[in-house]
Amino acid sequence: MNSSTDVWRDVQEIRKRSPIIHNITNYVVMNSTANALLAIGASPVMAHAEEEVEEMVGIANALVVNIGTLSAPWIASMRLAVHAAARKGIPLVLDPVGAGATRLRTDTAHELLHLVPPTVIRGNASEILALFQTGNAARGVDSQHDSESAVEAARALSQRHGCVVSVSGETDFIVQGGRTAKIHNGHAMMTRVTGLGCTASALTGAFCAINPDAFEAATHAMGVMGVAGEMAETLSFGPGSLQVQFLDQLHQLREFDLAERLRMEKA
Amino acid sequence: MNSSTDVWRDVQEIRKRSPIIHNITNYVVMNSTANALLAIGASPVMAHAEEEVEEMVGIANALVVNIGTLSAPWIASMRLAVHAAARKGIPLVLDPVGAGATRLRTDTAHELLHLVPPTVIRGNASEILALFQTGNAARGVDSQHDSESAVEAARALSQRHGCVVSVSGETDFIVQGGRTAKIHNGHAMMTRVTGLGCTASALTGAFCAINPDAFEAATHAMGVMGVAGEMAETLSFGPGSLQVQFLDQLHQLREFDLAERLRMEKA
Amino acid sequence: MNSSTDVWRDVQEIRKRSPIIHNITNYVVMNSTANALLAIGASPVMAHAEEEVEEMVGIANALVVNIGTLSAPWIASMRLAVHAAARKGIPLVLDPVGAGATRLRTDTAHELLHLVPPTVIRGNASEILALFQTGNAARGVDSQHDSESAVEAARALSQRHGCVVSVSGETDFIVQGGRTAKIHNGHAMMTRVTGLGCTASALTGAFCAINPDAFEAATHAMGVMGVAGEMAETLSFGPGSLQVQFLDQLHQLREFDLAERLRMEKA
Repeated sequence: MNSSTDVWRDVQEIRKRSPIIHNITNYVVMNSTANALLAIGASPVMAHAEEEVEEMVGIANALVVNIGTLSAPWIASMRLAVHAAARKGIPLVLDPVGAGATRLRTDTAHELLHLVPPTVIRGNASEILALFQTGNAARGVDSQHDSESAVEAARALSQRHGCVVSVSGETDFIVQGGRTAKIHNGHAMMTRVTGLGCTASALTGAFCAINPDAFEAATHAMGVMGVAGEMAETLSFGPGSLQVQFLDQLHQLREFDLAERLRMEKA
Repeated sequence: MNSSTDVWRDVQEIRKRSPIIHNITNYVVMNSTANALLAIGASPVMAHAEEEVEEMVGIANALVVNIGTLSAPWIASMRLAVHAAARKGIPLVLDPVGAGATRLRTDTAHELLHLVPPTVIRGNASEILALFQTGNAARGVDSQHDSESAVEAARALSQRHGCVVSVSGETDFIVQGGRTAKIHNGHAMMTRVTGLGCTASALTGAFCAINPDAFEAATHAMGVMGVAGEMAETLSFGPGSLQVQFLDQLHQLREFDLAERLRMEKA
Repeated sequence: MNSSTDVWRDVQEIRKRSPIIHNITNYVVMNSTANALLAIGASPVMAHAEEEVEEMVGIANALVVNIGTLSAPWIASMRLAVHAAARKGIPLVLDPVGAGATRLRTDTAHELLHLVPPTVIRGNASEILALFQTGNAARGVDSQHDSESAVEAARALSQRHGCVVSVSGETDFIVQGGRTAKIHNGHAMMTRVTGLGCTASALTGAFCAINPDAFEAATHAMGVMGVAGEMAETLSFGPGSLQVQFLDQLHQLREFDLAERLRMEKA
């Protein structure tokens, strides 16, 4: 199996179909998330009012819910939106930003998980561990754990909620039941740019919108993140230029780049 | 008539007078909008609380209202702000982001239009068609229509509300009653950067603040957007670098660039 | 005394300890603030809900409160957060964005000042003058005053509230009681990028988190802002590239750059 060919096929599908990705996300990353979705070829929409979220889900091809800067009105809208996504049958990606750091975030992530099982949970190791085992204290929103340490928690979460769990880190792990994929791409400088985790969740939404196998979609999204990120890093002098180059690389991504660089293992 | 000279005179006025542009806009584009206003030489302020919007309008030279990420408290503030702008007699630009995509957006755009006729409505073709004819379904926030297809709707809206209507697209159309201007600048890559439509509305506010002929102001703003955008594109490798270059080009814009590149038709 | 060595020691401490900086800040600058904190080596968190601000303060090493896009729920959270910071004994930086421009901002800044005396107040000259003497009308959020004109107001505020006051401008003045420091770095182009003042406040929080002498910390933060800003400017063609280069320079900053460029006077 030529894995980079599968990823490339998905990238082409996104560019061709330009799926609408409805993001209910945090204030910090809205701009960079929208730009990343545009750069890969998708069509982002942001809407968070209770009065319109269900209608916006109605025109979307995937919903991405990110709990990065929560407040009560946004949580109410997230509830409406995940139900609307379930009714419509579109993929739902949950990014539990900062789960484990505060009770509000941990509880909201759990509540959303139980209301509607997401298609994919995408988080860092600390967040995945916090979702698996309530009471796990995190240090801020950056992971304090190696991604590998969260693989078993990810597998248990996957089985409990019947979803794909995607854990980002130096190695990305994507699990679904007994399936596991690893991505060995990316660069440490990416952790010095805010919101690249949130961007990974948004791209996961775009891939799920065009690939009905959510495990494949989540894996391919992380592969594209990693390849675009490490290509961007070679052209960068710091996190400022990395952020700019990352969007350029997503936009320019060629089959050759994936063939050359993708280090994806599926098991 | 040397049109690029007229545009250049307005750019110089903005740089000299640094008009204060009060933006009530969406979360996605606040940063890039503020940066574009600073780059052209204007002075942006963002304020959205009911408690302060009227007072902030009181120190502003133009008000730009953008409905991109609406919620009830923001709509309440928009009502107060447009009334304050009317009382003070400063230009008002309305950007109906996503009108036609959800009822909340279409209804809010209509309500604001009827509360206080704006000086300029600036939107893409889908949004202008949605404002003209309620019930027109849009696909997200990106236009599904060619700008030319919205010219008659724009003209009708212009007559109905006594305002300028500026429709962005591959060709930009600006209409006011029987007057029409076209801008043939810009580049397709600009649609891969989030918020350049919102930026066009903000710059329209800056031009209206220094040029009392709103038709001229709206036209010149789109001319500057298009010229800076296509110059930026020649220096870019994708949407990431385009966004950066666009701000640099706005800042550096010279009379020569406009003379060389502006493709503006007035009729 | 080799001042650049003191600044460099603080930069190294931030990179080593990666202090968590909790920001309750405005929508316009959240992304650029988070990126600046990551670039210097700190760990930003953004949280504003009443339900979680106290808990987030509990894991933070400093709190930065910025009143740039206020509304009633955010003010309520700021009250809770500053009390939590005082209880925990972590540094508190207050950025009174637009104080003097509207009554809401002036009153909120005064209320917060009186609730809990901040460790550092960081603002431009107009804001510092407005805090000192209520009723002082500002023109928007950009300073209308030379920083030197605000030094006496800064000194009085420092004595009244027992805090450091940091006034940014062509020359930055940092005062605490009878102590004064001046920073002669930076570049005028920095005023054409939105939110660099807010970034200065965020970095001040990071320096306060690792240096218990708040006067030193606030001074060193402005020194790093100025040196990184002027290095960025030499590599820039306008405010777009300046913003990108600024993050790269913060990330790459070396002892040599500070030794070569820092123009800091302490008295």
